[in-house]
Amino acid sequence: MTLRVLGVDPGLTRCGIGVVDVERNRRATMVAVGVVGTSPEETLDQRLLVIALAIDDWLDRYEPHVLAVERVFSQLNVSTVMGVAQASGVVIAAAARRGIPVALHTPSEVKAAVTGSGTSNKDAVTKLVTKILRLDAPPRPADAADALALAITHAWRAGSGAAVATTGPGSSSLTPAQRAWADAEAKARRAR
Amino acid sequence: MTLRVLGVDPGLTRCGIGVVDVERNRRATMVAVGVVGTSPEETLDQRLLVIALAIDDWLDRYEPHVLAVERVFSQLNVSTVMGVAQASGVVIAAAARRGIPVALHTPSEVKAAVTGSGTSNKDAVTKLVTKILRLDAPPRPADAADALALAITHAWRAGSGAAVATTGPGSSSLTPAQRAWADAEAKARRAR
Repeated sequence: MTLRVLGVDPGLTRCGIGVVDVERNRRATMVAVGVVGTSPEETLDQRLLVIALAIDDWLDRYEPHVLAVERVFSQLNVSTVMGVAQASGVVIAAAARRGIPVALHTPSEVKAAVTGSGTSNKDAVTKLVTKILRLDAPPRPADAADALALAITHAWRAGSGAAVATTGPGSSSLTPAQRAWADAEAKARRAR
Repeated sequence: MTLRVLGVDPGLTRCGIGVVDVERNRRATMVAVGVVGTSPEETLDQRLLVIALAIDDWLDRYEPHVLAVERVFSQLNVSTVMGVAQASGVVIAAAARRGIPVALHTPSEVKAAVTGSGTSNKDAVTKLVTKILRLDAPPRPADAADALALAITHAWRAGSGAAVATTGPGSSSLTPAQRAWADAEAKARRAR
């Protein structure tokens, strides 16, 4: 069975959106990628409306099994984080309205899943996303690559969990990326 | 003409909602008030869905001319402010989807409009809201009173702006509350 994940890197100015199909053997294929942009000169309600209509359109068009969104953190500056949180609220509610499950992943979980290290930089994530999805060129801007990385992360996380369960006790069958992901996940759980 | 304003004090755990009709002479009458609560034990997507469905219901039922929402600030702790911002995003997008204008007001603008001072405490706001709306008892919890205060603030702000325009230059015709509001507004403008 193929899992279709719609990943969203939320933001008011640029909202990255990516759809990925992932097979049981972890092979991931890009279905679509894009960025929804809104101008800071628009009012907040009009900016959120553009994002709401765009996410509705993507959910209707690609019918993902699950929505993966970046868990919003506070390391950004305050005014930025507000907009990111408001955009993520709109995106999450749009999926919930359709009964589509929503998964949240931290940036370090995403980095760990895709690159094998929770502290990789954005360039490394873009590079690995390009390789994993067998793309001719890196997805641009970075928000688009991040959205695809989120989608891959979620599918591999769900998939690796299943793999661990079927291969019995121990984690010796995990790839380095899966181990890094498991570590990042455990860390995120402890932090909650 | 009567202006109907739906005020929302956003939050994940408690979202205050209040509907107020305000006449040209500033007389304000409460139409409805309520609180939408969601449990921290629910997942974020289910919490935002409850808020989205509730605000849809209120917008459909009361058909306000305008939605007034508290402008989210950062003085709260970070995890709280995230939830507040996500809830406000959902609420704002719901109004924007219906073409209902959205106005944002800061807490100090609300305090100034309702009590005459931008630094009043919550009890003073609740007390004045009760008096302004000629209620037998104070609206509880505070989130409900805050939602009503937001709605009153918006109507009076819109109304006082019109009054100032028709009474010519100078602000001598302003009440103390209107003057305090004008000061708070000017301050908020400078801070942007």
